[in-house]
Amino acid sequence: MSSQVGLERVVAPAGVLPQAAEKLDNSPEIGQDEVRIRVERLNLDAASFRQLETSHGGDGEAVRAEVLEIIERRGKMQNPVTGSGGMLIGVVDEVGPESPLGLTPGDRVATLVSLTLTPLAITDGLAGWDGRSEQVPCAGTAILFARSIAAVLPDDLDPLLALSVFDVCGAPALTSRVVGRYVSPLAGDGGPTVAVIGGAGKSGSLSLAAARAAGAVRTVGVVPNAAEQATLEASGLADAVALADARDPVALSAAVTAALGRPADVTVVCVDVPGCEHGAILSTAAGGTVIFFSMATSFAAAALGAEGLAADVTMLIGNGYVPGHADYALRLVREVPAVRALFEGRLAT
Amino acid sequence: MSSQVGLERVVAPAGVLPQAAEKLDNSPEIGQDEVRIRVERLNLDAASFRQLETSHGGDGEAVRAEVLEIIERRGKMQNPVTGSGGMLIGVVDEVGPESPLGLTPGDRVATLVSLTLTPLAITDGLAGWDGRSEQVPCAGTAILFARSIAAVLPDDLDPLLALSVFDVCGAPALTSRVVGRYVSPLAGDGGPTVAVIGGAGKSGSLSLAAARAAGAVRTVGVVPNAAEQATLEASGLADAVALADARDPVALSAAVTAALGRPADVTVVCVDVPGCEHGAILSTAAGGTVIFFSMATSFAAAALGAEGLAADVTMLIGNGYVPGHADYALRLVREVPAVRALFEGRLAT
Repeated sequence: MSSQVGLERVVAPAGVLPQAAEKLDNSPEIGQDEVRIRVERLNLDAASFRQLETSHGGDGEAVRAEVLEIIERRGKMQNPVTGSGGMLIGVVDEVGPESPLGLTPGDRVATLVSLTLTPLAITDGLAGWDGRSEQVPCAGTAILFARSIAAVLPDDLDPLLALSVFDVCGAPALTSRVVGRYVSPLAGDGGPTVAVIGGAGKSGSLSLAAARAAGAVRTVGVVPNAAEQATLEASGLADAVALADARDPVALSAAVTAALGRPADVTVVCVDVPGCEHGAILSTAAGGTVIFFSMATSFAAAALGAEGLAADVTMLIGNGYVPGHADYALRLVREVPAVRALFEGRLAT
Repeated sequence: MSSQVGLERVVAPAGVLPQAAEKLDNSPEIGQDEVRIRVERLNLDAASFRQLETSHGGDGEAVRAEVLEIIERRGKMQNPVTGSGGMLIGVVDEVGPESPLGLTPGDRVATLVSLTLTPLAITDGLAGWDGRSEQVPCAGTAILFARSIAAVLPDDLDPLLALSVFDVCGAPALTSRVVGRYVSPLAGDGGPTVAVIGGAGKSGSLSLAAARAAGAVRTVGVVPNAAEQATLEASGLADAVALADARDPVALSAAVTAALGRPADVTVVCVDVPGCEHGAILSTAAGGTVIFFSMATSFAAAALGAEGLAADVTMLIGNGYVPGHADYALRLVREVPAVRALFEGRLAT
C-alpha cells in the first residue's frame, strides 16, 4: 500500500518524511497514486533566494550553478541554509490511476505544497535563467503524491494574481470555517464579531472578506499606520478600521473592543511581527477563538499568556491546508472587487 | 472600572501587562475586585532555582539574598535571567466585594497563575529559608486580580499531591472538552479514538483518564521506553500502550494506527521533546484535532507540517486555563485510583 505522503521517494535518511529527507528519488516514472508535472517555472522562496544571492555576492551564474547542484544532489529544491523551498508552475503530464487529486493531463497547475518535499528533476540545466530573480524558468519533471496539493490556474485571472492568492489561501478558508461555527440562527445579537489583526495585508483582507461572507455581524481590521488605514477604509472590507500597535496588548484590546462594541468572538492574527499573542488573547471574548496565521507566533507566549490572563479562549495554529482552500480564495477575489483591487494594487507596486 | 488583569498594579514600564512589567505595586491594600493572600510558601520554578543555585555556586545564603532582592526590587518573584516564577501557597486574608473568584477568608489556596504576574511582598526577610531548595517557607502578602486563578487546597488530599495535580490540570480539562465534541450519540462506530503521546507522565495519565471519561471508544498511550510501558500497562489507564519514538513521524503514526485500528480522532501531545509535531499530525485522522500541551512545540513546524502533509486537522495550542480545570483534575485523582497511584508513585521517588 502507498504511504500517500511520498515515503517511497525518500532515499536518505531512511524513515523520515520527504520534507526532512536529505535526498529524494526524483525519477519521472510515477506510482499508482502519483502525478507527474512538466515543470515550466520555479518560484524560489524569498528567504532562500536572498541567501543564495548574498552568499555569491550577486553573481547570477554562481547562483544558477548552486541551485542546479542542490536539485541534482537532493532530488528537490531545498536550500540547505534556510531550509526553505518555494513552489512551481507546470502542466500535468501523467496521472496515476489511483491519484485522488482530480487532475487531468494538460491542466496548468501551481503546487501548493513546498518544493522542500517535491521530487524534482531539471532537464535543461536551468539554461533559461540568469540567476538574478526568484522566478526560475526551466524544463523538468516534478512528482505529486496522493496527499499533495495542486491548484489549477484559472483562465480568467492573471497567473501572477492567482499565485499571489494561492500563497495565503489557507487563511480565508479556516477563518470562514471558524466564524461559521459561531453563527447561530437563534442568536439574539445577530452573529459573531471578528477582529483581523493586519487587516490590510494579503491574508488579512481575504480573512475580512471571508468573515463577512461566513456571517460575522461586525468586523474590525487593525492596521499599524495611517497609509494602511486609508487603504483599508477605502476598500470597505471591514465595518471598522482601527489603528493600533499589535504588540501593545492594552492598546490593541482597547481598540478592538471600542470598534466592535465588545471583545471579538474570533480574532485572526495576520501580522508577521513577534509579540502579538497577548494582545490577541486580550481582544477575544470568553469562549472565543484566536487563529494565529503569523509565522512569528510564539507557542509558549500564547500558551502561557492565556493561562496568565485566565482567558478561556481556543487558540488555533493556522493550518495552511483546508480542503477547497484555493478555490474558495479565488472565489472571494472574483466576487469581492475590493479584495481583487487590493491584490492587484500590490502586484502593481 | 478595573482592568481585571492587574493593569493598575503595573508601576513600570507603563501600559504593559503585569507579566511583562519590570515593577509591580505590591502594597497590601486591595482594590474592589482583588484578593489578598497571607503567603506561607513559594514554590520557585525549577528552571529559575537551578539558575540561581548555579550562578551562586550553591551558596544558599547568596541565593536567599538574591531572591529577596528580586522581590523587593520588582514587587514580584520573576527571575530576570530565566523570566520564570513559580507559584505560592497561602491563606485568603481579605476578599474585595467585587472579586469573582469565589474565595472566603481562611481558605487555604494555591495560586495557579504564575508568580511572574503576582504582586508579592515579603515581611520576614525569608528568614526561614536556607536557599537550598525550590520550596521557600516565608511570610508576606500576595495579590490576586479578578482574572487570576487560585484553587482551594482539598482537605482529603496531601497538599503536595494536590499541587502536583494543579501543575498540569489544564490538560485533562481541555482534553475532555475536545473529546466530548467528537462524541455523537448517533455515531455508528461508538465514539472517538484518542492517542496520548507521553501517556505515562503527569499530564498524559490525566489526559488518558479524561479521554475515557469523556467518551473515547478506544485510547492508546504512547511511551518512549520499556519502563514507562510497564507502568502504563499495569495502570490500565489506556486501552493500548505503544512503544515509539515520538520524533519519528512514520514510526509514531504506524504505532498509533496499529493500536487504535485507525488514526486518532484526537491526539494529545504531552511530551516535552522537540520534533513531535509531524508525527502527531500524521497520527491524526482527517477532521481530527491535535492538542499540543508540550512547551517544546514549534509553531512553524506544526503549521508547515500540516500544510506539507495536506492534513485537514485542527491544531490547538494547549491553553492551561479552562474554567473548573483544577476541580476536574482533582476529581479524576479521587475517582480513578490508577491516576492517583501514578502521581503518588512520582512523589515518592
